[in-house]
Amino acid sequence: MKELTLVVASKNYSSWSLRPYLALAHTGQPFREVVVPLGQADTAALIAKYSPSGRVPALLHGELVIWDSLAICEYLAEQFPQAKLWPQDSAARALARSVTAEMHSSFAALRNHMPMNLHARKPGEGRAPGVAEDIARITALWKECRSRFGQGGPFLFGAFSIADAFYAPVVTRFVTYDVELDAVGAAYRDAVLALPAMKAWTEAARNEPPVARYEKK
Amino acid sequence: MKELTLVVASKNYSSWSLRPYLALAHTGQPFREVVVPLGQADTAALIAKYSPSGRVPALLHGELVIWDSLAICEYLAEQFPQAKLWPQDSAARALARSVTAEMHSSFAALRNHMPMNLHARKPGEGRAPGVAEDIARITALWKECRSRFGQGGPFLFGAFSIADAFYAPVVTRFVTYDVELDAVGAAYRDAVLALPAMKAWTEAARNEPPVARYEKK
Repeated sequence: MKELTLVVASKNYSSWSLRPYLALAHTGQPFREVVVPLGQADTAALIAKYSPSGRVPALLHGELVIWDSLAICEYLAEQFPQAKLWPQDSAARALARSVTAEMHSSFAALRNHMPMNLHARKPGEGRAPGVAEDIARITALWKECRSRFGQGGPFLFGAFSIADAFYAPVVTRFVTYDVELDAVGAAYRDAVLALPAMKAWTEAARNEPPVARYEKK
Repeated sequence: MKELTLVVASKNYSSWSLRPYLALAHTGQPFREVVVPLGQADTAALIAKYSPSGRVPALLHGELVIWDSLAICEYLAEQFPQAKLWPQDSAARALARSVTAEMHSSFAALRNHMPMNLHARKPGEGRAPGVAEDIARITALWKECRSRFGQGGPFLFGAFSIADAFYAPVVTRFVTYDVELDAVGAAYRDAVLALPAMKAWTEAARNEPPVARYEKK
């Protein structure tokens, strides 16, 4: 069997790395992990060493290099169909891909003003223009997914899917910046935080040294 | 058969709309098209009327609404496998998804400073910080795809794929802003511009009135 290696950046800060990590963990496949610390003099050199595309996250599978969080997740869904990384129902899957792609390309205000910082607590910070609108849109999407397809479990489409992997970093921001949620949002947040892979990632992040330029924001 | 409707924005400006249009045209399926003019007093109301998600582009398929250019393309690839919208080889498909996802989430400098404007000619404009790096990265990706998987045709993976749909708006920007390309880039640009669907879209854009706020940039 070809070895799977996931190249990620600092776990405390790298929201893009967390996403494919959760998807890969969900497959149950054994994999090797390489963590490249952000903000160091040799960060770019290290990334280039492990990820020939010069990008993280990257998945190495034998000779193949797949980069970008969403491309990695689609690849994992194809390679390991038994993990059911997308909802099995075609209509649910179409909605799951829509909300996932929206997360992939949008919510710039939230991303800029409430960057992921797992172990920080910054209640009240990050309320810049556009952030409230992003939060309202995200929680409305969660409500739509949960009400239409969430009957079989606590995640957006019942069972865990790539859509949850994509919104997991947002869940952690809502904790870090103390964003109040309605009952549906709060229950969903708690379900994501209770994922064993989410706990393992968060615990590993605890041992990383803080990086000044990511703490400033 | 369920009716397919693609809701797009002004063809002269909407790069996100062009992408799923090219993919849908490639399937050969009959579809209805709704064009929402940008920059009008009722633009938001029109979008909401045709696209319940409040987003364009959107694909309506029977009761389903799929939004976001990439989610629509993935949906089309699933629904119409005979169109082979992704490369058939698994390694080629992984690279195609990587370069497509990178286009979906990146190249902010190019997007901001060289916005799509099909019928304008602005040689020398748009050379802002970061734009040259974006262009270098894009043309390097094109070269990699063409050299590794482009033997069977003029597109990134030989035959037309979603990756080409995603880079088509970039091709038009290179014409509008007169960006010089090497031989591989120039041949690829010309192949994209020669697509019948690309020509039809460009011709339709010609009849749209200019919108001041999209011309200013």
